Amino acid sequence: MNPAALTNRGRMVIACPDQPGIISAVSTFFSGQGANIVHSDQHSTDYRQGVFFMRVEFDLPDLIGRGEALKQAFAPIAEQFQMSWRLTYAEIPKRMAIFVSKEDHCLLELLWQWRAGDLGGDIAMIISNHPDLKPHADQLGIPFHHVKLTKENRAEAEAQHLELLKDKVDLIILARYMQIVSPEFIAHYPNRIINIHHSFLPAFVGAKPYAQAYQRGVKLIGATAHYVTEELDAGPIIEQGVERVDHRSGVEDLKRIGRHVERLVLARAVAWHLEDRILVHGGKTVVFS
Amino acid sequence: MNPAALTNRGRMVIACPDQPGIISAVSTFFSGQGANIVHSDQHSTDYRQGVFFMRVEFDLPDLIGRGEALKQAFAPIAEQFQMSWRLTYAEIPKRMAIFVSKEDHCLLELLWQWRAGDLGGDIAMIISNHPDLKPHADQLGIPFHHVKLTKENRAEAEAQHLELLKDKVDLIILARYMQIVSPEFIAHYPNRIINIHHSFLPAFVGAKPYAQAYQRGVKLIGATAHYVTEELDAGPIIEQGVERVDHRSGVEDLKRIGRHVERLVLARAVAWHLEDRILVHGGKTVVFS
Amino acid sequence: MNPAALTNRGRMVIACPDQPGIISAVSTFFSGQGANIVHSDQHSTDYRQGVFFMRVEFDLPDLIGRGEALKQAFAPIAEQFQMSWRLTYAEIPKRMAIFVSKEDHCLLELLWQWRAGDLGGDIAMIISNHPDLKPHADQLGIPFHHVKLTKENRAEAEAQHLELLKDKVDLIILARYMQIVSPEFIAHYPNRIINIHHSFLPAFVGAKPYAQAYQRGVKLIGATAHYVTEELDAGPIIEQGVERVDHRSGVEDLKRIGRHVERLVLARAVAWHLEDRILVHGGKTVVFS
Amino acid sequence: MNPAALTNRGRMVIACPDQPGIISAVSTFFSGQGANIVHSDQHSTDYRQGVFFMRVEFDLPDLIGRGEALKQAFAPIAEQFQMSWRLTYAEIPKRMAIFVSKEDHCLLELLWQWRAGDLGGDIAMIISNHPDLKPHADQLGIPFHHVKLTKENRAEAEAQHLELLKDKVDLIILARYMQIVSPEFIAHYPNRIINIHHSFLPAFVGAKPYAQAYQRGVKLIGATAHYVTEELDAGPIIEQGVERVDHRSGVEDLKRIGRHVERLVLARAVAWHLEDRILVHGGKTVVFS
Repeated sequence: MNPAALTNRGRMVIACPDQPGIISAVSTFFSGQGANIVHSDQHSTDYRQGVFFMRVEFDLPDLIGRGEALKQAFAPIAEQFQMSWRLTYAEIPKRMAIFVSKEDHCLLELLWQWRAGDLGGDIAMIISNHPDLKPHADQLGIPFHHVKLTKENRAEAEAQHLELLKDKVDLIILARYMQIVSPEFIAHYPNRIINIHHSFLPAFVGAKPYAQAYQRGVKLIGATAHYVTEELDAGPIIEQGVERVDHRSGVEDLKRIGRHVERLVLARAVAWHLEDRILVHGGKTVVFS
Repeated sequence: MNPAALTNRGRMVIACPDQPGIISAVSTFFSGQGANIVHSDQHSTDYRQGVFFMRVEFDLPDLIGRGEALKQAFAPIAEQFQMSWRLTYAEIPKRMAIFVSKEDHCLLELLWQWRAGDLGGDIAMIISNHPDLKPHADQLGIPFHHVKLTKENRAEAEAQHLELLKDKVDLIILARYMQIVSPEFIAHYPNRIINIHHSFLPAFVGAKPYAQAYQRGVKLIGATAHYVTEELDAGPIIEQGVERVDHRSGVEDLKRIGRHVERLVLARAVAWHLEDRILVHGGKTVVFS
Repeated sequence: MNPAALTNRGRMVIACPDQPGIISAVSTFFSGQGANIVHSDQHSTDYRQGVFFMRVEFDLPDLIGRGEALKQAFAPIAEQFQMSWRLTYAEIPKRMAIFVSKEDHCLLELLWQWRAGDLGGDIAMIISNHPDLKPHADQLGIPFHHVKLTKENRAEAEAQHLELLKDKVDLIILARYMQIVSPEFIAHYPNRIINIHHSFLPAFVGAKPYAQAYQRGVKLIGATAHYVTEELDAGPIIEQGVERVDHRSGVEDLKRIGRHVERLVLARAVAWHLEDRILVHGGKTVVFS
Repeated sequence: MNPAALTNRGRMVIACPDQPGIISAVSTFFSGQGANIVHSDQHSTDYRQGVFFMRVEFDLPDLIGRGEALKQAFAPIAEQFQMSWRLTYAEIPKRMAIFVSKEDHCLLELLWQWRAGDLGGDIAMIISNHPDLKPHADQLGIPFHHVKLTKENRAEAEAQHLELLKDKVDLIILARYMQIVSPEFIAHYPNRIINIHHSFLPAFVGAKPYAQAYQRGVKLIGATAHYVTEELDAGPIIEQGVERVDHRSGVEDLKRIGRHVERLVLARAVAWHLEDRILVHGGKTVVFS
């Protein structure tokens, strides 16, 4: 995550029907372009008739200057193998909007890891339905937008959100935002909205998962970072974590213990997204190492 | 678990409405009887108006000979505090019946830990709807009963089970038995039937949990040991464990990884039951340390 | 950790030679005083001839007003059983001094958990050999003392530390302070200085444990919170945590991953100390549940 | 691990100085041979001037028949990139010798996983300095060799071991063998002897690690699988695991808890070796995913 290391570093992510020759074609392409493959990871759901996924991290002098030409040169290979693919430049930071409500632990973790250089990207803005967390934004000079939200004004509020986000944001993080997001909103950012749900999904979907967990008497509580889709808490899972609890743990204890799981799980998921490590296929994620 | 250490070792497990003076009354009782409290653990759901739980492990010379007198001496205290309670003798091993089907990993783990002395109790019999695992029973001289089970003969089969178990068994373990047990059967052994479910409940209730987990794309798989109640996979949870998986893990991988979680989780739950560490209250377990 | 719940809440911690009747004597004492035992935990190294440890958490109206009388009333029992013991009042917060150097993650975690109410106590001051982290102290109105430290002035610097701490601090936390503390200094705060070492001790004692871990090629890295004693990194261990790493992890990755383990492990150890859960015996800790 | 899936499955493992074009050259080679790359993993210690490691799993019709020709065709590429490399056939099982003493848990785990098909390979023989575990070998028809071992006859005993192993064994597993193996013996099987040490190395090297761990008061115990080298417990680490313990855990508890960690850690390490996933470089392992 050393900024110098990001210069001229490119990342290509590919998905296509599996067939012989893909790795050879891709790696020979990069070799022929004078690029140095720094890291490469692949996965196939079934190498005989499945889907093939590949992520290549490479260094190429003057990458951004040569980017368009590189894409054009790759196009025939992509066509030949029916690839869906994208090329990103590591030195162009992804821009994040963090949506919060009143709970601060996930926000503070993201801000801390970002300042420590453990999390790449730029934080373009923080949006909240409450003004409480504004001081944290102010202190770091991050724009904070308080957009009031009621049962009645949801559509207008989301319109305001979209206006604020427009052309300024590549990734939206729901850091304990605790509000339902409409299908229309989601459609603007497919697989680009990460939510942290405070249970090990699919257990305890919906409201008050810690109260549900307490009621059920589980011996492990967890948290799940996932992409937001139309169906509540049913989007592709990116990362999960758990912690042990026992009969002595009341609901407040579960919340306290769970907070630590939530913030670390969310931060890992965000870091992976920023590094283009995640592909979504069939409602599930491939997370490249 | 040193057999010698179990001689004259008693265990009393208590539940009652919480109020001041319980610990004092109980510990003074044991002290007055000349018993040495070796270990004691308590829990209160709410010390002002909740339920109080206590487990006392003690040594008393000639415990079994004096057992009835001890119980009679304790009765007034129990009555005063409205206790439900039980006294057990560690040197009288609990008798287990292990129900299996075709999968052997949970059975083998229990047999291995039992032979190693990590699991107390006696294995009275193994019951199965298939003959496949009989050799493991034969090898250790454990009675193996093959009771055929079809959709049509369930009631007769269960009657046969009850006949085999009658007066011979204190605990039933469903070690990947994979069959539904009827409410009538369960009523004979309330909170004395332990099942291992191959998911972190309440996620993936019912059949084929690994296939469900694969389909959902979870990043952790788990196993849950619980007491069997009428509602499928909804009984009080005793213990849970998880293991990480990723997008490379197919259903067969999940099964293979999960087997190791299942067998260790089940063995821990059984050990705790045999040591009288578990109380059930409100659909949840208290597991004394 | 609800402040209201701490009012009139007392904690007694006891160590004495094990013998029959201790629990009875202690619980009967509290019962006779009109105190309500809220939680009680015991441990014996060997109930026949070992050391017995006990922690009782209780509620008693007007606790602080009656504290001295309570201590006097308990004295005969303590004498009878040769107890070393202490009584603390939960509503009187312990005062902490946090020693830091340049790394901020452990400090920020403590500050964050403290503000969230997950960590009790008062932060009396932050002391550092570098001015870098002063802004974090300023922001919360916590006194920050910059005491320069060189090889030559160690004795004077420590004298200055002791002067700053005198009568103001109950617990010292070395939150990645990275400096050796002299035996003379330690003698002022026996078992009241908590250090976080960035390895799973006793592996990788001393400097640069992550570099050592990388060199050795371990597959797990860890952190250890321990009381500081004269011998470097050899004090009683309070808590440890680990995280998986692999061959891809360079030294910088180990540091990044390790930071999350360090800060959570340290915060747990500090919370337990503040709640009087820790007893030291024979170079090891008893951590009451 | 489906046997049918292993037919015509090859694995090539490569190490060489890193430079551009390696992946391209290797994948193009396989593509040109008509092989289908099923899985591929790479690692570079430093892509500018480090060492590059690669493991390719591929399918090729009539692999064994064409093996020699394949190797000859690859030789020029290997020479060009200064590769050290090996090609193995998945359908030819590696032959294991398991060395044991009196403790059976690691042996039983290996036997169980092997019978369950979770562990590939053939078990050629079991060698022990005690006759105790012979029945487990007999039961599965595995040759068991009891070779007495005293301080005086170590050299002769090892000569006998080598005679038994000669041309029959590809991997030696010390499954709690508890004996020092001489440098001369090790030299016959470099990076082909796996030991399980019952601590998280480098903590608690040498004898009685659980007693050492108890003495030190650690809160986590562990186990480490490593290749055996001349220096005791200092060989390349393959895998590690830990489990929580607390002040209540005596030495016997640590042993009991640790046994479960040991056997799972050892079995994972053995499985990885059998699948050609491990490369040793600079005293450390690369474990390909």
